[in-house]
Amino acid sequence: MTNTAGKIFTITSFGASHGKAIGAVVDGCPANLELSEKDIQKELDRRKPGTSSITSPRKEKDEVQILSGIFEGKTDGTPITGVVFNEDQRSKDYSYLKNTPRPGHGDFTWSEKYGNYDYNGGGRGSGRVTISHVIGGAIAKKLLNQQGIKVISHVVQVGNIKAKTVNMNLIEEKASQNPIHCADHNAAEDMENLILDYKNKGDSIGGVVETITLGDPVGLGEPIFGKLDGDLAKGLMDIGSVKGVEIGMGFDVASHTGSEINDEFYIKNKENSYEKIEKNDIGTTTNTSGGILGGISDGMPIVTKIAVKPTPSISMVQNTVDLETRKARKIEIKGRHDPCICPRIVPVSESVTAIILADHMLRSGFINSSNLEKTPK
Amino acid sequence: MTNTAGKIFTITSFGASHGKAIGAVVDGCPANLELSEKDIQKELDRRKPGTSSITSPRKEKDEVQILSGIFEGKTDGTPITGVVFNEDQRSKDYSYLKNTPRPGHGDFTWSEKYGNYDYNGGGRGSGRVTISHVIGGAIAKKLLNQQGIKVISHVVQVGNIKAKTVNMNLIEEKASQNPIHCADHNAAEDMENLILDYKNKGDSIGGVVETITLGDPVGLGEPIFGKLDGDLAKGLMDIGSVKGVEIGMGFDVASHTGSEINDEFYIKNKENSYEKIEKNDIGTTTNTSGGILGGISDGMPIVTKIAVKPTPSISMVQNTVDLETRKARKIEIKGRHDPCICPRIVPVSESVTAIILADHMLRSGFINSSNLEKTPK
Amino acid sequence: MTNTAGKIFTITSFGASHGKAIGAVVDGCPANLELSEKDIQKELDRRKPGTSSITSPRKEKDEVQILSGIFEGKTDGTPITGVVFNEDQRSKDYSYLKNTPRPGHGDFTWSEKYGNYDYNGGGRGSGRVTISHVIGGAIAKKLLNQQGIKVISHVVQVGNIKAKTVNMNLIEEKASQNPIHCADHNAAEDMENLILDYKNKGDSIGGVVETITLGDPVGLGEPIFGKLDGDLAKGLMDIGSVKGVEIGMGFDVASHTGSEINDEFYIKNKENSYEKIEKNDIGTTTNTSGGILGGISDGMPIVTKIAVKPTPSISMVQNTVDLETRKARKIEIKGRHDPCICPRIVPVSESVTAIILADHMLRSGFINSSNLEKTPK
Amino acid sequence: MTNTAGKIFTITSFGASHGKAIGAVVDGCPANLELSEKDIQKELDRRKPGTSSITSPRKEKDEVQILSGIFEGKTDGTPITGVVFNEDQRSKDYSYLKNTPRPGHGDFTWSEKYGNYDYNGGGRGSGRVTISHVIGGAIAKKLLNQQGIKVISHVVQVGNIKAKTVNMNLIEEKASQNPIHCADHNAAEDMENLILDYKNKGDSIGGVVETITLGDPVGLGEPIFGKLDGDLAKGLMDIGSVKGVEIGMGFDVASHTGSEINDEFYIKNKENSYEKIEKNDIGTTTNTSGGILGGISDGMPIVTKIAVKPTPSISMVQNTVDLETRKARKIEIKGRHDPCICPRIVPVSESVTAIILADHMLRSGFINSSNLEKTPK
Repeated sequence: MTNTAGKIFTITSFGASHGKAIGAVVDGCPANLELSEKDIQKELDRRKPGTSSITSPRKEKDEVQILSGIFEGKTDGTPITGVVFNEDQRSKDYSYLKNTPRPGHGDFTWSEKYGNYDYNGGGRGSGRVTISHVIGGAIAKKLLNQQGIKVISHVVQVGNIKAKTVNMNLIEEKASQNPIHCADHNAAEDMENLILDYKNKGDSIGGVVETITLGDPVGLGEPIFGKLDGDLAKGLMDIGSVKGVEIGMGFDVASHTGSEINDEFYIKNKENSYEKIEKNDIGTTTNTSGGILGGISDGMPIVTKIAVKPTPSISMVQNTVDLETRKARKIEIKGRHDPCICPRIVPVSESVTAIILADHMLRSGFINSSNLEKTPK
Repeated sequence: MTNTAGKIFTITSFGASHGKAIGAVVDGCPANLELSEKDIQKELDRRKPGTSSITSPRKEKDEVQILSGIFEGKTDGTPITGVVFNEDQRSKDYSYLKNTPRPGHGDFTWSEKYGNYDYNGGGRGSGRVTISHVIGGAIAKKLLNQQGIKVISHVVQVGNIKAKTVNMNLIEEKASQNPIHCADHNAAEDMENLILDYKNKGDSIGGVVETITLGDPVGLGEPIFGKLDGDLAKGLMDIGSVKGVEIGMGFDVASHTGSEINDEFYIKNKENSYEKIEKNDIGTTTNTSGGILGGISDGMPIVTKIAVKPTPSISMVQNTVDLETRKARKIEIKGRHDPCICPRIVPVSESVTAIILADHMLRSGFINSSNLEKTPK
Repeated sequence: MTNTAGKIFTITSFGASHGKAIGAVVDGCPANLELSEKDIQKELDRRKPGTSSITSPRKEKDEVQILSGIFEGKTDGTPITGVVFNEDQRSKDYSYLKNTPRPGHGDFTWSEKYGNYDYNGGGRGSGRVTISHVIGGAIAKKLLNQQGIKVISHVVQVGNIKAKTVNMNLIEEKASQNPIHCADHNAAEDMENLILDYKNKGDSIGGVVETITLGDPVGLGEPIFGKLDGDLAKGLMDIGSVKGVEIGMGFDVASHTGSEINDEFYIKNKENSYEKIEKNDIGTTTNTSGGILGGISDGMPIVTKIAVKPTPSISMVQNTVDLETRKARKIEIKGRHDPCICPRIVPVSESVTAIILADHMLRSGFINSSNLEKTPK
Repeated sequence: MTNTAGKIFTITSFGASHGKAIGAVVDGCPANLELSEKDIQKELDRRKPGTSSITSPRKEKDEVQILSGIFEGKTDGTPITGVVFNEDQRSKDYSYLKNTPRPGHGDFTWSEKYGNYDYNGGGRGSGRVTISHVIGGAIAKKLLNQQGIKVISHVVQVGNIKAKTVNMNLIEEKASQNPIHCADHNAAEDMENLILDYKNKGDSIGGVVETITLGDPVGLGEPIFGKLDGDLAKGLMDIGSVKGVEIGMGFDVASHTGSEINDEFYIKNKENSYEKIEKNDIGTTTNTSGGILGGISDGMPIVTKIAVKPTPSISMVQNTVDLETRKARKIEIKGRHDPCICPRIVPVSESVTAIILADHMLRSGFINSSNLEKTPK
């Protein structure tokens, strides 16, 4: 099983939903970055459930401990290990899931592939495992922030409700003001109502999460098998529940012409550009490419969207099979689940994007891989 | 620059559009697979331009030579090198592209990142580089076919014209019968006319290519950072011009509920299943997940879609900048380009998908990594 | 910093001598191997100091906790995390080491490279970090034992005292009977006296550790950049204090002729061969190659030797420099150190060898990478 | 099979002794390094046989062609492919080797592992494959030279004849003055006579090759699994015929004490130091560690030694087995072989060392990975 991602800045994820702990070893962070448990806890708190009416009411404290990699308040170049110990590991009886895989979940394929499958709370297939991603992401974000780079995710669609476009520089603040993490407050209200509606029916609903990166330099990514968009596509698709990834204009390009969507170049004028923190003097007047040309960042905001499926855990009776007897069976899933996982995916897609950008900042020499103090200004 | 992809079955790509040669070193193919230049040539012929009114009229013979890896007509476990020598390398003057990047192309980011940029015919950023992918794909497909696995790409949308759904078992044959590679022949005709229309205007149009895999076993992929869908997303997004990737239902999941889209399990009955070549006795009644659950193949057809942008090379005058003087400029791109690249992406998306599947067949032990004759039946 | 080793069976190491914890994430172990903390503790107990008069008298309990990867007493295919929490992290004042690097240690290079260097007890440069290796090794050994493969290290030289050759099948038992881990009991006694002698002088002494592998199949390793001997050389040289690695006859080949040392082939006769557990019917009458031909195991015992330097921590006054003032200084190292590290390297070299062999058993398909129950018999 | 080595600066090797071609794809070289076929040819000429009485009299022209990666006389950041087409591929009948493996060669293990084995001239197991290494090494050396770093190999032992120590700054020139590549001219003469002696007997003799690196900075390598000595050990052991690797004092450390061999630090005085090109102001008065402390270069010359076994191809009758009938057989190897391979390993060990150093220069940020002009001075 492959549980390590990245080339220079890497994250090794471990742990299961109801095991002793979930955590990550984050390797490749240069020495001399100020870092404490607070930096990570802040992001984990954005991920945890039970914080609003539209997330699962389960209570999980998710307190992180750093076991290694920090010396006198700063990273020392060695691997940083963050661990969250699971509380209350055996609160429920999940044995009814043992041989009857839940539709839409990975239970079936895990059982068939590995044989010995920890079905408690979804085991390692649980969304709880994204605690690892958020640990890595918190460190990556701190590293990027130091270089003037921000990564922001927000919900732009739930069911058929789509958010209106909001000025990029305001998204972070506005999206933080409601439990949906949607920057369009009117849409957010409708989304919340829709989600509560499906929650009451015991059903769930899908959505779309957008991630933007501001302040990135020209030159992240490599043109063939190390494309920045390729790496982002993998990282984002690797998040559970994601069924599609778009860069820039995404699938809309199919019905457009070259003359309509080619982003033309211009010499930037600081006053009218998206960003205060300009890394290059050349920009594009439009950004259908989503900030990536030929696999390499062009200095414009990097924009991705992911399609998030409705949580497969619903309370209706569903058809399944018995893996032992190989006969048809019914299943009724118990417990309290997120009726729409989009709001909780926000810190995860931010984390994944930040991890990949940090890796490319190191790979391309924008950040010194050993020692932050040697990074060229 | 990263030009090697894969973990066990790997492809190392090299060469540029107008350099001496383009090729690939394909490593990790087990010994004892019958393989000749014909197997690769057949696929390269599907990729080359000049074969119909809707592709670029450029003539390129694209004849492959195998330099290594074959002994007495079979692979011998050593790296297989396939090379296509470029003819007629200096036919045109591309020097006007040197400092004026074409909108929508990678010229700008390459120049800024690497400094020394081969702008002739797009250099290594040219679509011609997918010759490497097709060389690797031809070998991967042969390896998969031997295990009863087929990978088929076809065009399902051009502009606003969408193909009707065609029985999966008929797609390969039907799509091969028109230059669009579209299995719905009525739509194909409309697509062809639309493309010719844009060709005459000097413009270009986007589209969507679908890829399906039939006959794959349960158990390809790993659940966290080695997800099969994550790897496919990366591979497909790494193809030039691709701006979006979907697995199964893709972005449509956003507006659906769990109860609508959860694929329910059933005990398969050979008569009513998609596939003759059944690898498992459990199936799903629908396939919104696109054959992948929790990152692992579930034995149903694997279905992906990619959004292909309109070829950025159009004949209209466009705004650009001069990279040396850092001043605004106009550019008019010369030459004969594909007005819609979708038909020529078909063998490339097949190749990329086949390469990734072959890699996972080896990683998961379905094929012995040293010697095909040791592969369990 | 690279803290992950291996291709399929990987180990990610973390932690520092006086940090909160030291541990390892062991990934790629197939599901269904019985494993408990006892299996790992047994090996850690062989590594820990304070067990005899010739090792450091420091007391470290080194109790391992498994945080992930085990379900119902067996591995479940997910990453296995083993952690040893450090006790008594701030018992001593190491601040005198901050700017005055100890000769023969990595303090100087670490400080210059990373800037922020944890000098307490050697930080991450301490030999304590091999706890990670032993955690990984314990798991690898259990996996190999199940396939009839044994890995055994023993001390064959300390100072000028060399052990006599002992029958390979008796080494494990005999070496376990003395604190030196030397199978020749007469030599062991002399070695012990020699070590005590240097201990009393505040000095230290080097030695040689041999590792043999019994019961391996023909076919581990790959002939160019994946040579089994190449991988062993790296793994063994990566152990702190190791300054040389030999395979089979090692440096003695320099003064021999081809006719003297070529290992001739013969058809094996179970009665007179090294091993009960024969994996192939062809053997070599001698084994100067150390069980590896052309980078691939030939089924004979794999034999390596490592040169272990005398512990650089000695109690004499030594010349060093002040890293801040860039002036000459003297240093006198305090504390209780191992006068000869060879006995404690025994479980580490076993571990490293076992990890590499397990990785190759998986890479070559001798063990199924997902599920041990699918491994061909 | 793994035929790609390195992390940032990588080499992918392909081809067989009597196949169409042997070559390498060298990836990760930054743009803007002046490079031509001459730079590579110069090194290949040092490797080829038939240049003196003590190497094989076979004539091989070994002319390299660069197929990709160079634009206007400079690297452009894309993969550099160098190919040598084999002439005269079917000059001899090697079929007698098909089922009777030569003692000391990899024929046996290859045949058993891969089944389909190209036995002509040793196939891909032939020393001819090091053409790949030398192609990569030539590029790496040019990159290193530009940073003031030199890598020099020379023969220090043949049979029992050992060369006297020569001033490090003179080794390159002196070693180039005789066919043995030995800097001690008296020893060289004796070595030559000894080799001719064994040549006449149809036998072969082993030896030792030393490699030194001058001008490297402090800070190459990483302390745990990315140790510079670990990587060198792997690279050097991966060369065919090598049975041992030493760093610095090597196996001699076993019989020494800490007080004897600890390298003490001092503030360097340009006048009395080894090197004109000083990268750090702190040095060590001795260099038993061979320029590497804690896995990281300390700025002193990096010194390695390899044990090279006598060429296993000798003209005497030897015992072997028939792989088909599984019965005992005799074999008599025909052809003209190198009686001592050490002189021809010199450019190979230089190449391997240079490739690894170039990789670490890039990994540690001493050279910008995209564009040489962005490398900090």
